[in-house]
Amino acid sequence: MVILQLALPTTSSANLRPKLPSLGGKQVTVPPSLCVSNSQQSEHPTSSSRPANRQSVAAIVFGDGSESQLYPLTKRRSEGAVHIAGSYRLIDAVVSNCINSNITKIYALTQFNSTSLNSHLCRAYSGVGLEVVAAYQSPEARGWFQGTADAVRRCLWLVEEHPVAEFLVLPGYHLYRMDYQKLIQAHQQSKADITIVALSAEISRETGFGFLEVNSENQVVEFSKRSEKEPATIISVKSPRKSNDNGYKKLASMGIYVVKKEIMIKLLREHFPKANGFGSEVIPGAISIGMKVEAFAFDGYWEDMRNIEAFYQANMEITKKTDVGYNFYDRDSPLYTLPRNLPPTLITDAVITDSVIGDGCILDRCEIRGTIVGLRTKIGDRAVIEDSVIMGSDIYQQAEDELSSGMKGTGNDIPIGIGEDTHIRKAIVDKNARIGKQVLIVNRDNVQEGNREAHGYTISEGIVVVLKGAVIPDGSIL
Amino acid sequence: MVILQLALPTTSSANLRPKLPSLGGKQVTVPPSLCVSNSQQSEHPTSSSRPANRQSVAAIVFGDGSESQLYPLTKRRSEGAVHIAGSYRLIDAVVSNCINSNITKIYALTQFNSTSLNSHLCRAYSGVGLEVVAAYQSPEARGWFQGTADAVRRCLWLVEEHPVAEFLVLPGYHLYRMDYQKLIQAHQQSKADITIVALSAEISRETGFGFLEVNSENQVVEFSKRSEKEPATIISVKSPRKSNDNGYKKLASMGIYVVKKEIMIKLLREHFPKANGFGSEVIPGAISIGMKVEAFAFDGYWEDMRNIEAFYQANMEITKKTDVGYNFYDRDSPLYTLPRNLPPTLITDAVITDSVIGDGCILDRCEIRGTIVGLRTKIGDRAVIEDSVIMGSDIYQQAEDELSSGMKGTGNDIPIGIGEDTHIRKAIVDKNARIGKQVLIVNRDNVQEGNREAHGYTISEGIVVVLKGAVIPDGSIL
Amino acid sequence: MVILQLALPTTSSANLRPKLPSLGGKQVTVPPSLCVSNSQQSEHPTSSSRPANRQSVAAIVFGDGSESQLYPLTKRRSEGAVHIAGSYRLIDAVVSNCINSNITKIYALTQFNSTSLNSHLCRAYSGVGLEVVAAYQSPEARGWFQGTADAVRRCLWLVEEHPVAEFLVLPGYHLYRMDYQKLIQAHQQSKADITIVALSAEISRETGFGFLEVNSENQVVEFSKRSEKEPATIISVKSPRKSNDNGYKKLASMGIYVVKKEIMIKLLREHFPKANGFGSEVIPGAISIGMKVEAFAFDGYWEDMRNIEAFYQANMEITKKTDVGYNFYDRDSPLYTLPRNLPPTLITDAVITDSVIGDGCILDRCEIRGTIVGLRTKIGDRAVIEDSVIMGSDIYQQAEDELSSGMKGTGNDIPIGIGEDTHIRKAIVDKNARIGKQVLIVNRDNVQEGNREAHGYTISEGIVVVLKGAVIPDGSIL
Amino acid sequence: MVILQLALPTTSSANLRPKLPSLGGKQVTVPPSLCVSNSQQSEHPTSSSRPANRQSVAAIVFGDGSESQLYPLTKRRSEGAVHIAGSYRLIDAVVSNCINSNITKIYALTQFNSTSLNSHLCRAYSGVGLEVVAAYQSPEARGWFQGTADAVRRCLWLVEEHPVAEFLVLPGYHLYRMDYQKLIQAHQQSKADITIVALSAEISRETGFGFLEVNSENQVVEFSKRSEKEPATIISVKSPRKSNDNGYKKLASMGIYVVKKEIMIKLLREHFPKANGFGSEVIPGAISIGMKVEAFAFDGYWEDMRNIEAFYQANMEITKKTDVGYNFYDRDSPLYTLPRNLPPTLITDAVITDSVIGDGCILDRCEIRGTIVGLRTKIGDRAVIEDSVIMGSDIYQQAEDELSSGMKGTGNDIPIGIGEDTHIRKAIVDKNARIGKQVLIVNRDNVQEGNREAHGYTISEGIVVVLKGAVIPDGSIL
Repeated sequence: MVILQLALPTTSSANLRPKLPSLGGKQVTVPPSLCVSNSQQSEHPTSSSRPANRQSVAAIVFGDGSESQLYPLTKRRSEGAVHIAGSYRLIDAVVSNCINSNITKIYALTQFNSTSLNSHLCRAYSGVGLEVVAAYQSPEARGWFQGTADAVRRCLWLVEEHPVAEFLVLPGYHLYRMDYQKLIQAHQQSKADITIVALSAEISRETGFGFLEVNSENQVVEFSKRSEKEPATIISVKSPRKSNDNGYKKLASMGIYVVKKEIMIKLLREHFPKANGFGSEVIPGAISIGMKVEAFAFDGYWEDMRNIEAFYQANMEITKKTDVGYNFYDRDSPLYTLPRNLPPTLITDAVITDSVIGDGCILDRCEIRGTIVGLRTKIGDRAVIEDSVIMGSDIYQQAEDELSSGMKGTGNDIPIGIGEDTHIRKAIVDKNARIGKQVLIVNRDNVQEGNREAHGYTISEGIVVVLKGAVIPDGSIL
Repeated sequence: MVILQLALPTTSSANLRPKLPSLGGKQVTVPPSLCVSNSQQSEHPTSSSRPANRQSVAAIVFGDGSESQLYPLTKRRSEGAVHIAGSYRLIDAVVSNCINSNITKIYALTQFNSTSLNSHLCRAYSGVGLEVVAAYQSPEARGWFQGTADAVRRCLWLVEEHPVAEFLVLPGYHLYRMDYQKLIQAHQQSKADITIVALSAEISRETGFGFLEVNSENQVVEFSKRSEKEPATIISVKSPRKSNDNGYKKLASMGIYVVKKEIMIKLLREHFPKANGFGSEVIPGAISIGMKVEAFAFDGYWEDMRNIEAFYQANMEITKKTDVGYNFYDRDSPLYTLPRNLPPTLITDAVITDSVIGDGCILDRCEIRGTIVGLRTKIGDRAVIEDSVIMGSDIYQQAEDELSSGMKGTGNDIPIGIGEDTHIRKAIVDKNARIGKQVLIVNRDNVQEGNREAHGYTISEGIVVVLKGAVIPDGSIL
Repeated sequence: MVILQLALPTTSSANLRPKLPSLGGKQVTVPPSLCVSNSQQSEHPTSSSRPANRQSVAAIVFGDGSESQLYPLTKRRSEGAVHIAGSYRLIDAVVSNCINSNITKIYALTQFNSTSLNSHLCRAYSGVGLEVVAAYQSPEARGWFQGTADAVRRCLWLVEEHPVAEFLVLPGYHLYRMDYQKLIQAHQQSKADITIVALSAEISRETGFGFLEVNSENQVVEFSKRSEKEPATIISVKSPRKSNDNGYKKLASMGIYVVKKEIMIKLLREHFPKANGFGSEVIPGAISIGMKVEAFAFDGYWEDMRNIEAFYQANMEITKKTDVGYNFYDRDSPLYTLPRNLPPTLITDAVITDSVIGDGCILDRCEIRGTIVGLRTKIGDRAVIEDSVIMGSDIYQQAEDELSSGMKGTGNDIPIGIGEDTHIRKAIVDKNARIGKQVLIVNRDNVQEGNREAHGYTISEGIVVVLKGAVIPDGSIL
Repeated sequence: MVILQLALPTTSSANLRPKLPSLGGKQVTVPPSLCVSNSQQSEHPTSSSRPANRQSVAAIVFGDGSESQLYPLTKRRSEGAVHIAGSYRLIDAVVSNCINSNITKIYALTQFNSTSLNSHLCRAYSGVGLEVVAAYQSPEARGWFQGTADAVRRCLWLVEEHPVAEFLVLPGYHLYRMDYQKLIQAHQQSKADITIVALSAEISRETGFGFLEVNSENQVVEFSKRSEKEPATIISVKSPRKSNDNGYKKLASMGIYVVKKEIMIKLLREHFPKANGFGSEVIPGAISIGMKVEAFAFDGYWEDMRNIEAFYQANMEITKKTDVGYNFYDRDSPLYTLPRNLPPTLITDAVITDSVIGDGCILDRCEIRGTIVGLRTKIGDRAVIEDSVIMGSDIYQQAEDELSSGMKGTGNDIPIGIGEDTHIRKAIVDKNARIGKQVLIVNRDNVQEGNREAHGYTISEGIVVVLKGAVIPDGSIL
């Protein structure tokens, strides 16, 4: 019935498959992970169990992407666990979208540096229907998940049992607000097999998830994507459904897919049983075999924070009181996270402009401009912080800690926080860093890229990133 | 249009209403309440169930006192529910003491304006062994609890089942940090029937809970207390155990008692079956019949916030970074409360000195000095807040709310928060107040006491208190 | 447009008002309690906070009724807290209906013997949007709630803040399964001010909530109710909307009302500011002044368990595997309760027919027929239990307990549970009862009514009810 | 003072190291997984955060062992997730031991088939201080955990931050009850570097964790263990501390170790940086270099369920009411699990002897002898179940499910549960199996070993194991 037209050369299937992680280079292939928790009916009267029977959709959220360039922020955590806006982690945005869209069956698939992400998700959301599915070994498959599609495939045994009509596949490390119910409705009304969410601007930026060409009825007629492995290569498929139409538009995919349950099962098991990624293989494959693939245009704020520069800019936007970016103060669709009961921020004498201050900080006589100050940050007298992201601390040190650690003389005598007379400009300071007194972090030599991890920092596109737990001795100049 | 005709004789209303506490005198009759939840073994693996069998002590916390002078802060809430330090409620201090002392059987007895207190306790602490026991009617007792002792008596049926050795009776509306385990140990080592915690300073202030005279062995040999009903009268009892001793000291009771379980049962049922209060009747009674009553001296920070002035001063102390008062930033014995996931505070351009800023505020170009700024407070451009307590807001208003409420023209067109060009000095602003633009709250006429509730505020000892949800129109001068 | 016709004699309002609780007699007028928790936005990502903004309805559940005849089961607990089906409490049915109907703002108003009910609700449901509002004293109102309407009125300050369109008023002590969303939809479509749920059978039993006469369009045209105080008197109102219609039906109200928010406020504050009850005053009043009152017919299983006999029969129905009664095994709208993690039931050698066995029982060589056996019940060798309700135990006794209690010689040497060679027929055994060996509980003398509380039991309509915690010595014959 | 004596040949380090997982063969070397969640201070007032500062010990629980022979029960789940006693999973025993021993920092390390285990742990215990640490990839280590020691090593970055004095290393798949505090005390009093828990019986069974020779002071003077890779080889080390002593005893290690924090760090990083397992490498290594290694004898019930036969026997013991095995009804140290709110078990007419019945079963006219019947099991008329383990079902099927699935004709028309006239003897029936009518599962041909997975079952040591979700058609004979 459907004429199979592969626009790809027949040898392309090789290209479709991402190479296995090469240990040299930027590698990282092995993306997140998929999968599904246990099939057990939830026993609690949480939302997860309740309307389960009426829920038509289960969300599958990936905790990390295959091409993260947020290192060193991802040195010990996955992309979704990166701290944002002083109080949150990146994945909170997508999970909150699910909650606010009344989706209460959420599988979070994690694999890379997943410890803190798993802990965060489990503690913050296990009561509202989210289940963490960490990569695992099984008798049939001893390796890691080889990509988003492989991950979902290996969880099909679990997913199949769930009485839903659609799966909603979501990257978990983007910052945006969307009512997924509208997306699901559009998907259902169009009777599509797959619906891809795409940025509505016709000439869009490179999202890394490929470009769609859609006709005036929002059908995807062509899909192209730069190969992750060989960036020179471009995967491109045309739909056999393509017809004469004048209203073509080119959109950039956001990596968000709604897929009918039985279509998902067929795609992963029958049509493309070896495909590893959705964007690189399964979606173009589905188009090529004539499945009904629709586009859903999204025109709100969307930020993928693909690299340190983008992450930094997105944070800078948060410090401004404008309507441009993400509204963290929205009552009707709030941003959730792990609840805290920190004390209020204590300020001795500060001048603060265009900044965002998290809970439980202790700010002495300092100046803070255009900066995000995270939970429990301590800033000493006469410190000046400008245009920076300070992620804060996981604990309050006690007087005796500081004393005892001081005795070690290991540099741990510098307390967590930012010392007196220190000046920081255009930097990202990760959690629990110990920045001494009279330190200058201003990228004095105007370095663009540099890895000085041994000294506790790196530089990316001119932005100094102080590592988690790094010690920057008194008087240092970065 | 409809004519309503009540056929009841007018005299009936007298019967309908239980007699009010007499408004003359110190009144207050009906104090809090006590008691105990259900005898059911906790089913969860929470701390409540876990070491239950090894716990020697159950805490009984009173949510309100009989002599609160915190009105109007207690107009809609009980004393224990009053907001403190921007992020907490008063009762959090005592409950956190219990948790940090590893006491996991806690009964919170509530009766007066208990709705928000019950909700807070239930949501924040039901997972850690606290059970709210609200005043209730039963076939045997149709009235309210008549005092602390009456409350405990009426819950004895419940309390008796619990396999503990001691009860720890705690007022729930004081701010202090204490390791109750040390108290329990002292009680057990002295083999006392009752141990009373008292301020250690020999010449202490009037706490309202009476004075103890103790001998050099910490035995209470004399107890005196001003009568609540007839303040001219002083209750005074001497212990028959009193002997020659040179080391007498006079201490002020803090209203905290450790009582052996079987002694508690005997005192309330056999010895003083009609006594209503502990401090006024049961404790002096126990001394008079020769029970072994010991004192335990406490020399830390303790604040009872008996009236608006004391509440205000305690808050002012919080804004200073000193070692004098209560440390909200203690890692090892943290102060718990209902966890939140509010966004960080957004500051456009502020000068802030000696202040404490809660989560989720939105501060424009303002000046804040010596002030506590509670959760979700919005402060407009050019506002100046000095030496004040701003309790914050329960919600974020949305743009449409403000619009729609504006249409009503009821004064609700003033949004929650503090308007532009407003100046507040030495005031307490309760939750959800709507303070307009160019308002002056400075007690211009230097009034000491005044009740202007119709206008949304009262004045106590020169401190203006803006009521919860009050609307203060643009340009008002208070 | 609507012609006002008061069918009531002008003196009728006297009848409308319930009498005050007379202290003599069994009468328990003062019904439940009302209302509302605190106005604070829920801080957790529970269902309560989540779709709050989209919820059009808040449920108000009453934990007890004014005419309970379940004594002695209600000696220490309110009606809603009575155990049912071995594993549940009565109120679970209505709260589960709310949860399954996706209503996540639930206020449970409690007043009478409320301790165990409050504890149950708080622990089981505080995560899913239920807030317990226990009766409380306030500066304006020192008395108890005087009825359902009085209770709601006194919580209006709280309820008003909530952005809902309707209130759903629910007695919390009936056993039935209903999708309230269908009710809400019918209410909204009919544009009614009030919708009353009624049993659909035209000639219905006396529910205690009055009878409705409805026309063919489901409008309530007449309402009559036997006065609670003077059963000879019948309150009766006709709607001024009554017109010629042939399709009149007479239905029995179930005491469930959907009321528009602003109508509720007007009725309680303006039209009937002194009315105490809904069924007795507010609803007939609303009809009499021409409000649009609709009926919603319910034709499912509904059991009000108004007295011991009805309670007993409802339990007997549970033991049969039929489609007649309430389905406790429904996957799609499960019955929730406080989750447990009890061990499985251990059976040594039992013949069990038409019975229901709760978790964690220990059954020796016994015979169980037509019986409900509640949590943790222990039944000794050769015991025979027939046609009975055994509520089980709150704890497992340890060997040492039994030993030590034995030493007291107080009759506590009889362990909790049912002893060897004991025979029980047609009885209700409340929690934690200690029934000795060779006991005969068969109502040998065929007594119909009898109160022998001193001996640990009562008899109602021929059914022996053993009190909670009662001790029935070895060899007793009841 | 101590003479260093390496009993090992110098080449022995090679033997100490287990081979890497060979991809051929059934061998599953790669054992569990390691380690630690995020370093973030817990924000909740749960037990995890509370006494954290006073806890001297953190537990590290392994969710699966390297030599599980419980297949096919472990086909889709790890060892720790295997169902036991109708209501629990194996890991509940160890986690409950931790909770009952007041250890509230628990890391559960999982890797193999971990999905359902992670979900169970996260939902049941995340509120009480347990954190799941699933195997993960990191920039430094792309492979799976290579053994228990490798797992802990890779989590040291996380573990180091935690202020504890000792780590308690626990296999998570054994059934026993132990107060770990006594173990910790013994460890601290002996000032040992490492304490190994061992079965006290002098001539013990082979536990798989090696044998200890201890002197009269409980010091371990010799350790030997059969190599996992080459069972013919026996690893054996003598302590250089070994001296003349007459009181030698030989004990079998239970795989439970208490290790001082700094010793753990040194062992894993400095002394044996490539060791993969504790029992095979790190512990013998520590002994060989003269560390102070003590034994702690345990004489209670302990069952490791190493294979199907042992698992079966342990379950059979549960069905007997004796004092021999594990007491599931202990009030003071209860066995926790994921709480449920299932309905009671409904029994139409059953003869039940020496059996254990989980919650929510529906048993028709059947006969059950010496059997464990798990949650939600349905058993049809005239079925006879003897000496078996029935694990139950995760869901209730609805009438329509059964109907619709019937239409498929895929064998799914057989409902979950056990059909009429079916006879089962000496079998294990995993979750959600669909066993038809007139089926005979009695191992008629007396097969000892057999893998008939395609037909839905295997046979191990004569015990038939029906796979999870297997369909056994009407009339089958197994």
